[in-house]
Amino acid sequence: MGRKARKIEKLRRKVNKLRHRLAELRAAHSAAKPAVSPLAPADGFPDLPVIGGVRFAAGAAGVRYSGRDDVMLAELVPGTQIAGTFTRSATRAAPVLDCQEKLQLDADGGAAIVVNSGNANAFTGDNGRQAVSEISRAVAELLGASENRVFTSSTGVIGEPLPFERITAKLADLKADLDPAGIPGAARAIMTTDTFPKGAGTIFDIDGQPVAIAGIAKGSGMIAPDMATMLVYIFTDAAIARSDLQNVVTRLTDRTFNCITVDSDTSTSDTLLICATGASGVNIGSARSRSGRAFEEALSKVMLDLAQQVVRDGEGATKFLEITVTGAQSDTDARKAAMAIANSPLVKTAVAGEDPNWGRVVMAVGKSGAAADRDRLSIRFGDIQVAEKGWVSPSYREELGAAYMKNQDLILGVDLGVGDGVATVWTCDLTHRYIEINADYRS
Amino acid sequence: MGRKARKIEKLRRKVNKLRHRLAELRAAHSAAKPAVSPLAPADGFPDLPVIGGVRFAAGAAGVRYSGRDDVMLAELVPGTQIAGTFTRSATRAAPVLDCQEKLQLDADGGAAIVVNSGNANAFTGDNGRQAVSEISRAVAELLGASENRVFTSSTGVIGEPLPFERITAKLADLKADLDPAGIPGAARAIMTTDTFPKGAGTIFDIDGQPVAIAGIAKGSGMIAPDMATMLVYIFTDAAIARSDLQNVVTRLTDRTFNCITVDSDTSTSDTLLICATGASGVNIGSARSRSGRAFEEALSKVMLDLAQQVVRDGEGATKFLEITVTGAQSDTDARKAAMAIANSPLVKTAVAGEDPNWGRVVMAVGKSGAAADRDRLSIRFGDIQVAEKGWVSPSYREELGAAYMKNQDLILGVDLGVGDGVATVWTCDLTHRYIEINADYRS
Repeated sequence: MGRKARKIEKLRRKVNKLRHRLAELRAAHSAAKPAVSPLAPADGFPDLPVIGGVRFAAGAAGVRYSGRDDVMLAELVPGTQIAGTFTRSATRAAPVLDCQEKLQLDADGGAAIVVNSGNANAFTGDNGRQAVSEISRAVAELLGASENRVFTSSTGVIGEPLPFERITAKLADLKADLDPAGIPGAARAIMTTDTFPKGAGTIFDIDGQPVAIAGIAKGSGMIAPDMATMLVYIFTDAAIARSDLQNVVTRLTDRTFNCITVDSDTSTSDTLLICATGASGVNIGSARSRSGRAFEEALSKVMLDLAQQVVRDGEGATKFLEITVTGAQSDTDARKAAMAIANSPLVKTAVAGEDPNWGRVVMAVGKSGAAADRDRLSIRFGDIQVAEKGWVSPSYREELGAAYMKNQDLILGVDLGVGDGVATVWTCDLTHRYIEINADYRS
Repeated sequence: MGRKARKIEKLRRKVNKLRHRLAELRAAHSAAKPAVSPLAPADGFPDLPVIGGVRFAAGAAGVRYSGRDDVMLAELVPGTQIAGTFTRSATRAAPVLDCQEKLQLDADGGAAIVVNSGNANAFTGDNGRQAVSEISRAVAELLGASENRVFTSSTGVIGEPLPFERITAKLADLKADLDPAGIPGAARAIMTTDTFPKGAGTIFDIDGQPVAIAGIAKGSGMIAPDMATMLVYIFTDAAIARSDLQNVVTRLTDRTFNCITVDSDTSTSDTLLICATGASGVNIGSARSRSGRAFEEALSKVMLDLAQQVVRDGEGATKFLEITVTGAQSDTDARKAAMAIANSPLVKTAVAGEDPNWGRVVMAVGKSGAAADRDRLSIRFGDIQVAEKGWVSPSYREELGAAYMKNQDLILGVDLGVGDGVATVWTCDLTHRYIEINADYRS
């Protein structure tokens, strides 16, 4: 072994020792929490509009974490219309199944949402159902609502029984703290490996009358479509029929939360609930009406904003990547190709390494199952034409691509050249930090 | 910031500095090649049987690498029957398309296989076809074979023109070096990010007459089914009709190379060629005959051995994982679930971290699309019953799982409890080293 090789061996051992020491220190000391994602919004949690008809509270029930809030309660006025979309996992958690059942019922009166972090109440057998029902009953009693109007979510570790009594013991305190402006605390209480709380909102006009929407989300790992793995709660003071609300949220989920991926893994707890209190007195018609279109446009912005925040908080993310596939045989094919690129570990590591490795994009398109013709494929990084007609573009130089890859936000364009199908998806890169986070999440 | 937090910051900076220094040294010095995979066979490259009717040579053409062999030539006697299976990527490389076309033709006489590493000749437009045809013509001329009986493969970087003249310039030397025992050199010449050469062979008996099979493979990243991303060349002295050879290799590919995955990415160059020289004089009948069954069984072992070696050389692998799903509604469903587990970044990082995180296995089953009932699912790590009937097993203790995960070779059993479908797949863990390798493969 040469001198340099020995030096490398020595350094390698040193690095390993340091890594080990670092992991020990991290485990020993709570100050070693992950730093905020470099892709977090620069101006922190946004000023969200206050939504008439809903009040929030957050508190520390000690479900798993200590020293932080881990449960949130939202109380909704009678008449609130509620709709939702959920994970399509075959091993859905107890709270998800419970929400789905309750949304089929025709209960009315007040309503509530209770969410805890730290424990997902997933794969917990009969205990799972029991925990949901105990929490629902306690909340219903406390707020004078029907049990069928209490929706719960849980996020965190899978397979451990949820200590629901810690949550029910906290409910009276939460009720006392209910506050129309309490949404930022709620956003924080539902975080798990998230490094920043996620919120988005808007106020728009219908015939000169303001309507407000405010939403919060959590999620940073186990993010993949079907639907994007996360919890999302959106509130609006619009008055809208439940079926219209369900239709618009289903349609928009497909274009927002189902178009993001961090790691291709889909959680068993994905939940999106949208609650329309009607407090603004503004009636929203069906999707085809002018008010329906205005509502859909405003809601779309809020949902896309929240979805992109989840990607920006992707575990270990250092780059935000928008991928648009055009010229596919169908929109479905375009989405297949875009998701194959977004989920490819080789593409994601290339992005992490700031390597303009467009060959891996070709590979991902090839394996996606989308109809493609190698010799019609073209690829752009931002405005740079990288490849066209089955080969590297004559105008492309590696330095151009390498310089572009230094950006934090990247746009990748792929044209398949075989039709009119289009899709856009969002993802992040795959870094050492992802592995650090996920190789010892439980310990 | 506390004292410990400052210490961690300091250590983190130190590690980063060391990592950077390590990367620099690596780039500067060729001795810094990745160490051999910890999962490599302990006894090195196996003693393969010499196959009558085929001779091998390897040499350094300088396609991309320097100081190592990067091209191999196999010369096959007239009458050799050749069959193959290939990547199903829509963006297949020029050599793959060329092999597929040639296998449809009825040429006879001698045959040859030429393989280079360092450049995949993929996504290289018209130049790609031209390079294949120049190499084929030169080999045909040199060996007095038909151009239609010369099969080429290329593996390495995508999108750069293959400097085929460096290969053709080397052909005369290769011819002079042809050797019936030259297969180990051939196995080394086709390596890219592989850390060890892969070979497997067997000698079996038909009516007291020995028949030999020997095969080599390369591949360690971009490994996923459809088919497992790699190059594989298998030689046998059996005499067998081409259609029978094609049938058996198609069937076995589905149970071996299509059941492994390293990173879910599928290459554009996957190629498996099998060549039956007939030199043993032993005739193999159809799949239903006794000789056909014996041949299939022997070939199956060789193919599975090679496939598992590829997984054991998975980029950054430190654990070898066999995943068997039983009780599925169909074999297809069982395979879907097994592959979803095998490809899940969260499962793979848990394995890397020796974390018995069976919740992530539940998650992967849930997202797989296979029919599953949460409350019938059971999970075993080796012989340890971890979960059953939708919850953690009463006999399970975390220490048992944690101790089991320390093993280098792991067996994960999942029973879906809804039918008789079965599948087994093989994969490795996802580690920092994978990211190191792939975040700067090209630079």
